[in-house]
Amino acid sequence: MESLGVLLTVPMNSYLEGELSKRCKLFRLWETPLENRWQFLRANAASIRALVGNSVVGADAEMIDALPALEIVASFSVGLDKVDLAKCRERRIRVTNTPDVLTDDVADLAIGLAIATMRRICEADRYVRSGAWKNMGDYKLSSKFSGKTIGIIGLGRIGLAIAKRAEAFDCPISYYSRSEKPHANYKYYSSVVDLAANCHILIVACALTEETRHIVNREVMDALGPKGVLVNIGRGPLVDEAELVSALLEGRLGGAGLDVFEHEPHVPEQLFGLESVVLVPHVGSGTWETRKAMADLVLGNLEAHAMNEPLLTPVL
Amino acid sequence: MESLGVLLTVPMNSYLEGELSKRCKLFRLWETPLENRWQFLRANAASIRALVGNSVVGADAEMIDALPALEIVASFSVGLDKVDLAKCRERRIRVTNTPDVLTDDVADLAIGLAIATMRRICEADRYVRSGAWKNMGDYKLSSKFSGKTIGIIGLGRIGLAIAKRAEAFDCPISYYSRSEKPHANYKYYSSVVDLAANCHILIVACALTEETRHIVNREVMDALGPKGVLVNIGRGPLVDEAELVSALLEGRLGGAGLDVFEHEPHVPEQLFGLESVVLVPHVGSGTWETRKAMADLVLGNLEAHAMNEPLLTPVL
Repeated sequence: MESLGVLLTVPMNSYLEGELSKRCKLFRLWETPLENRWQFLRANAASIRALVGNSVVGADAEMIDALPALEIVASFSVGLDKVDLAKCRERRIRVTNTPDVLTDDVADLAIGLAIATMRRICEADRYVRSGAWKNMGDYKLSSKFSGKTIGIIGLGRIGLAIAKRAEAFDCPISYYSRSEKPHANYKYYSSVVDLAANCHILIVACALTEETRHIVNREVMDALGPKGVLVNIGRGPLVDEAELVSALLEGRLGGAGLDVFEHEPHVPEQLFGLESVVLVPHVGSGTWETRKAMADLVLGNLEAHAMNEPLLTPVL
Repeated sequence: MESLGVLLTVPMNSYLEGELSKRCKLFRLWETPLENRWQFLRANAASIRALVGNSVVGADAEMIDALPALEIVASFSVGLDKVDLAKCRERRIRVTNTPDVLTDDVADLAIGLAIATMRRICEADRYVRSGAWKNMGDYKLSSKFSGKTIGIIGLGRIGLAIAKRAEAFDCPISYYSRSEKPHANYKYYSSVVDLAANCHILIVACALTEETRHIVNREVMDALGPKGVLVNIGRGPLVDEAELVSALLEGRLGGAGLDVFEHEPHVPEQLFGLESVVLVPHVGSGTWETRKAMADLVLGNLEAHAMNEPLLTPVL
C-alpha cells in the first residue's frame, strides 16, 4: 500500500506510526504549525485517501470536507463518537474501528477500578507511603466487593466481559440496554434509574451517542445513593460530570472509579482531594499488548482497503 | 457466658469489644499502663479463662504462662502465627480462628492488587490528581492483566478463591503446595522456584510457619524476573523483605502488590518512592462486612466453650 496517502492528525502510538511510515505515504499533521494546517491539508488533499483517528481526535465534518479524496477513516479506538458517521455515510467513506482486541483490558480496568474504589486501594497506598500507618495506627475499614450487585449500562462486548469477570466474585449481575438481550442470563431493567436503584455498583459500558449523552444524570446518581459506587470506563459525556461532582462532594453518592471525563484531559479539580474516588487518565486500552493489537488492526484495515479486499472490522 | 473472664490485649474491633463487654467479664489490657500490665494480669489471672488475639498480637509463651486459668484462645484472624500453638497443645488450651468468612475479601484484594500493579492504577491516580494529565499529556502504557499466567503459593481456601477469580480473566493457573492437590485442576509445581520461573504473577497465599518463612527468597524473585509481579496477601515474613526491596530497586523484579510486611506497621521507606509497587496496610479482611462476621465467629466460639458445646471453628 505504498501509494496510499494516510493522514495521522496526532501522535498516538509509536509502533503504528513507524509501520505507517514504512508501508504508506504518511502525513503527520501535528508537525505542521497550527496556523498552517489548513494550508498543509489543501496542498496534500489530493493524496490523502485515508485518515487514522482515535478516541480523542477523530474526523469531524470540517476535516472530512477538507479532504475530498478521503476514502477511509480507520480509527485507533473502538468508540467512534469523534467521527462524523453521518457525513462519512453521505460521502461513502468507509469507517473501521478496533473492536474485540481491547475488550479484555477495558473489562480488567472496570473490575480493577471497582475493587480499588470499594477497598480504597489507592487511598490505602497513600496512607502507607505517607508514613501514616506507623504513626497513626490501623487503617479504617472499607466495603466488601464480592457479592455486591453490579448493574451494567450497555451489555455489548465490553459489558459482557465485565459481567463474566464479576460473576467469579459471586456478584449478581443486572443490566440496562435499549432492548433485552435474548441470550444474556442477567436481570434486565428497561430503565437506568431502576437499574441504579437495584445495584450497589453501577458500571457504564455503553457507546456514546446523542441518546446516551448524560445517561447517568442526577436522578440515576440519587437512585444509586450514598452507599453506591459509579464506575465509568465508557466515555466521559455519558455521565453528567457537574452533577457527579456535586453528588460526591455532598455524599449523595458513595464513590466513583473513573477512567473517562467529560472534557479530557481536564478533570474537575474538586475531585482531586476526594478519598472516595479513583481517577485514571483514560487508560482503558492502555497496555503494550493491546495497543500493538489495535495498531495491527488499523494497519490490516488500511491494507485490505488498498488491496480492494474486505475490511477486517468495517463499521461503514 | 457472663461468668467467662475474657482478656482482650489490644483494641481490635468496636463491635466485638462492645459485645464482649455486654456478654462476658471483659478485661481490657491496653487500658492499664504498660509498666503495670504484669501486675494487672497477676491480679486477675484466676478469672481470665479466655483470650482474644489477632494477627498482630496473639498469645506467646510468656502470656500463656502468665494465665494459669486460660482455657481458650479465640483468635480474631485466620492465621495463628502469633499464637504459640505448641504451648497451647501442651497446656490443653483450646484454640479457634476465623476461617472462611474472610476468604472472599482476601481473594478480592489479591486480584485488586494484581490488577492495580499491572495496570498502574495508583500511580495513574496520582498522575491525574497532581494535574499532570493536563500538563504532561497521555499517561504511559502499562501491562495487560487478562491472560497472564498466575502462580499461587498455597492452594488452601484463599488460594482457591483467588484461582476461581483469576480464571474469569482467562489467566492460566499454576500452584505450589507441600503436596499436589488431587482435585485441583491447575498445574502443580513441587518447587517454588519452578513455579516462579513459569508464571508472570506470583501470589503468596500460604500460612506462615517455620517451613514457609522466607519461602519467597532471592532465588524465587530472580526466577520471577524483571517482568514478573509479586503479590503478598499472606504474611510479611513469607517474603525476604530485604531481598524484595533490592530486587525492586535494581529492577530485577517488575513490581509488587503488598498487603503485608515483615515488621508491620513498619514498611521499608525505600519502597515509598517506587511506582512499580502498590502498598496497603494489612487490610486483607478489613471490610465492615467481614470484620462483623469474624467478630460473630469469635463470640460464637467463646459462647460454645462457655456452654461446653462443640467449638464452631476449632484448631486445637
